[in-house]
Amino acid sequence: MTDPIDYFTEEASVAAVTARVGADTDPRLATVMNALVAHLHAFIKDVGLTQQEWDEAIGFLTRTGQMCDENRQEFILLSDVLGVSMLVDAINNRRPNRATENTVLGPFHVDGVPECAMGTNITKDAATETCLFQGMVTDLDGHPVEGARIDVWSDNEAGFYDVQQPEIQPQNNNRGVFVTGPDGRYWFRGIKPVAYPIPDDGPVGQLLNDLGRHPYRPAHMHFIVSAPGHQRIVTHTFVAGDDYLRSDAVFGVKSTLIAEYTRTPEADTLWNSTFDFIMTPEA
Amino acid sequence: MTDPIDYFTEEASVAAVTARVGADTDPRLATVMNALVAHLHAFIKDVGLTQQEWDEAIGFLTRTGQMCDENRQEFILLSDVLGVSMLVDAINNRRPNRATENTVLGPFHVDGVPECAMGTNITKDAATETCLFQGMVTDLDGHPVEGARIDVWSDNEAGFYDVQQPEIQPQNNNRGVFVTGPDGRYWFRGIKPVAYPIPDDGPVGQLLNDLGRHPYRPAHMHFIVSAPGHQRIVTHTFVAGDDYLRSDAVFGVKSTLIAEYTRTPEADTLWNSTFDFIMTPEA
Repeated sequence: MTDPIDYFTEEASVAAVTARVGADTDPRLATVMNALVAHLHAFIKDVGLTQQEWDEAIGFLTRTGQMCDENRQEFILLSDVLGVSMLVDAINNRRPNRATENTVLGPFHVDGVPECAMGTNITKDAATETCLFQGMVTDLDGHPVEGARIDVWSDNEAGFYDVQQPEIQPQNNNRGVFVTGPDGRYWFRGIKPVAYPIPDDGPVGQLLNDLGRHPYRPAHMHFIVSAPGHQRIVTHTFVAGDDYLRSDAVFGVKSTLIAEYTRTPEADTLWNSTFDFIMTPEA
Repeated sequence: MTDPIDYFTEEASVAAVTARVGADTDPRLATVMNALVAHLHAFIKDVGLTQQEWDEAIGFLTRTGQMCDENRQEFILLSDVLGVSMLVDAINNRRPNRATENTVLGPFHVDGVPECAMGTNITKDAATETCLFQGMVTDLDGHPVEGARIDVWSDNEAGFYDVQQPEIQPQNNNRGVFVTGPDGRYWFRGIKPVAYPIPDDGPVGQLLNDLGRHPYRPAHMHFIVSAPGHQRIVTHTFVAGDDYLRSDAVFGVKSTLIAEYTRTPEADTLWNSTFDFIMTPEA
C-alpha cells in the first residue's frame, strides 16, 4: 500500500498513467502515448487549466469530430491552423538546402487524373487571368530528370476547387498530369490562382475568429513531382505579392516556394510563371 | 522579406503560430492556446511523429467525436483514461492534508433526486449484499457541519447505474440525497458496490486494449457533499480489498478514499461502511 506510483497524485500524474502500459505493448505505440501523456499533463499544469476550460475543450473536440463527413475533415483543419500539419511535413521531409521544399498536401487532391500532353490548358471554365506555367525538373546536380510525373491542381478564378462545386465546374477543372521528356522540361496552361478561405463555418473557423486570425490562404498552384529514385515533392508555388503570403491560415508558405508571375500581354496567355523543381535522391 | 518568424520553419514552428494571435484576443485564451501549441509541437518533435501516425491520430480523433451522442461522451472517456480528468480535478481542488479529497465526478450523476430521510434504503431492486453507510461531516477542526447535503449514487449488483438500464431498473435506483442535522451525522442503506468496466466498445476501449490496459473501475460509492461556506466535495469511497484499486482505468483512487466494509451479520444489513467527510472552508 506504499508504492507512490500506483495511486494518482498531481505531482506524479504522468508516472501514474505511463506505469500502466502493458509489457506486450507495441514499443512505438508506448513511446508515442507516453510522450503524449507527459506533454499533455505538462500543458495542463503550465496553464492551471480550470474545470470550465476542460468542459469547453471537451465540447470543442466533440463538435470538431461531429463536423467531419465524407467531404469535410475538421480535425485536419484543426491540425492545419495549429501548425501541426506543416510541422509533421517538415519533420518527415528534411532536404538539402537547394532542393525544392515540401508544403501541405491539402484536402483537394484527386487521384487518377489523366495524363495530358505538354502545353495543355487545364482550365475548362471561363477564365481571364490565363497563365503559362513552365520550368525544369532537375536533380541536385542540375541534370534534367526524365520521366518526372507532375501532378498539378488549383482553384478556379472564384476561389473554388472543382470538387467543391461538382454541379458547377467541369470535372478535373484546373487539374492535370504531365510527364517530362529527356530535357526535364514541363509547360502547361492554367490560370493565375486566387486566394481563398479555408472552410470556416465550423468549430475551427470559430477558433480562428476568437484568436483574431483570418481563414485565408494566399493564392497557390499545387504540385506533386515524383520520379523513380527521387523523393516525392508535395508542394505549392505561391503567387508573389499575394496579400496573405505572411499570414497563410495553415502556415504553408516558405520563401523558396514564392514564384514570380510576369505579365506577357503579347502571348496567348496573360501571365507567365517559371519555376524549377530540384529533386533529392531517395534515402 | 527577412523576418524569420513570418514563414514557418521546423525550428521556429511555435513562434510562427503564436505570432499570429490577434492583439484583441482574450488574454486567457491566448495564454492557453499558445501553451497548447508549444506543448503539442514539442510532443511531435520529441517522438518524430510520422505522416502515417498523424493519419492515424486524425482518424482516431474523428472516430472519438463521432462516437459521442446524448448518452455517450467518448472524449470524456479519453480524458479519463489519459489521467487528464483526474489532473484537472486535482489542480482545481487542492486542499489541506486532513481534508477529504476529490475524485472524478463520472458520467452517471443525476440532478434533482429527491431528499430522503436518514436511514432510507436507496436500493430499489433485488439485492443481497446490503450495506449500512454512515459517518459524520465535520469541518477541519472536527466540528459537525449541520445542513450538509449528501448526494450519493452507485451501480447495482450487476454493475450498472439506473440511467444505463432505464427499462430494467427502477428510477433513482441506488440514488439518494440526505441532509445532516446538528450532529453532522448521516446514515443510509444501499448495497456494497461492485466493480464494472467503462464503456469499451469504441475507440477509447480499442486504445486501452492496444496499451494492454483493462477497462475496469474498482467498486465505489459516489458522494457529493456540499454545505454553505465550505468547498464542495465531489468524491467516491472505494471498497477496500477490491481487485482493481491499483489499476482503476480512470485513475480515480486515492489512498484516503478507501473505505472498510465490515460484515455485520447480526444487523438488518450484511455490511457496514463508516466514512467521515472533512470539509474545507471556501476560499
